[in-house]
Amino acid sequence: MSERLILHEYAASGNCYKVRLTAALAGVAIERREYDIMKGETRTPEFLAEVNANGRIPVLQVGDRFIPESNAASYYVAEGSALIPSDAIDRADMLHWMFWEQYNHEPNIATLRFWMRSIGLDQLHDGQRQQIAGKRLAGNAALKLMDDHLKARDWLASDRISLADICLFAYTHVADEADFDLELYPNVIRWMEGIMTLPGFIALDS
Amino acid sequence: MSERLILHEYAASGNCYKVRLTAALAGVAIERREYDIMKGETRTPEFLAEVNANGRIPVLQVGDRFIPESNAASYYVAEGSALIPSDAIDRADMLHWMFWEQYNHEPNIATLRFWMRSIGLDQLHDGQRQQIAGKRLAGNAALKLMDDHLKARDWLASDRISLADICLFAYTHVADEADFDLELYPNVIRWMEGIMTLPGFIALDS
Repeated sequence: MSERLILHEYAASGNCYKVRLTAALAGVAIERREYDIMKGETRTPEFLAEVNANGRIPVLQVGDRFIPESNAASYYVAEGSALIPSDAIDRADMLHWMFWEQYNHEPNIATLRFWMRSIGLDQLHDGQRQQIAGKRLAGNAALKLMDDHLKARDWLASDRISLADICLFAYTHVADEADFDLELYPNVIRWMEGIMTLPGFIALDS
Repeated sequence: MSERLILHEYAASGNCYKVRLTAALAGVAIERREYDIMKGETRTPEFLAEVNANGRIPVLQVGDRFIPESNAASYYVAEGSALIPSDAIDRADMLHWMFWEQYNHEPNIATLRFWMRSIGLDQLHDGQRQQIAGKRLAGNAALKLMDDHLKARDWLASDRISLADICLFAYTHVADEADFDLELYPNVIRWMEGIMTLPGFIALDS
């Protein structure tokens, strides 16, 4: 991949970390542009008009094209690497986990982490507070499903690491920051250790 | 694609319709197996053990492999067809809309439709009822974002129809069943008409 890639991001976000970790493991160089989401820097008229009308990061810039959504940006970065399985069924299985992440995992675990760490529980409005118990339940169900699946497997979607593992690792490995007890999920812990010891691995805060 | 494809589904679900519409437009034959989700037929021990541990439909069966998640199953069915752009940036842009659908569109528009049509507003529990206003707001924001994007375009992700259009069409074209006023989004209506007049198009209830 020879074109210039610019990641528009907020470094503490697990969604942005997905793209950086993908790039690190695939050996792809990316430049980084930081926005402070706590100061509304992704909701300015300029950002909405030029980078992402949805007002969210990460967004991957490729020349004059902008790719929002962490899993889609990661997919582009991983194109041509072994992180995307060459077998069509394995590839669809990888995408299954990535769509599952957006629907069943991220809205529960990542959102609770954001509410607890970035906003603060005492600053939540009633509508958010009423969702905490449901998100706690659904987040644990998601971790349980991963743990059961990983019981007899090393990786989520094929017999080697794929994008599915990277995209699920991002918020799973910091789930304790949202008070999820990862000790309950020993297969998930083993799987995380497999990722953290990969050559080229980088940490969220790197 | 020569292998036997079996779609485990609930026909009234827009998520299942995505896979059927993809197959129809790509000219791929699929068999259908119906489950009544209102009777819990996707939560039986057999279904959870053999088809999908997440207890949801659709699931695409390919030989002895099972692909859950509507957008991943649609991707597999569309492999090798022009519904998946050959250009890597267009392909990532298509995936961006598909992930966006799962996070910003489906949980609002599809969930409200399910609550209003299948469960019934008077049968909702308090936790669901408290989310209605937020989902109404977020659903309209999603439709507005699509409408703005389609102002100067015929298709969401490239210069011809892609999976992104199919996956977003599924719940957009029945958003009125959740009391969304589609007349507010004229570019979305034009885009839907473009899909409904494609050769091979099939309706949700076909």
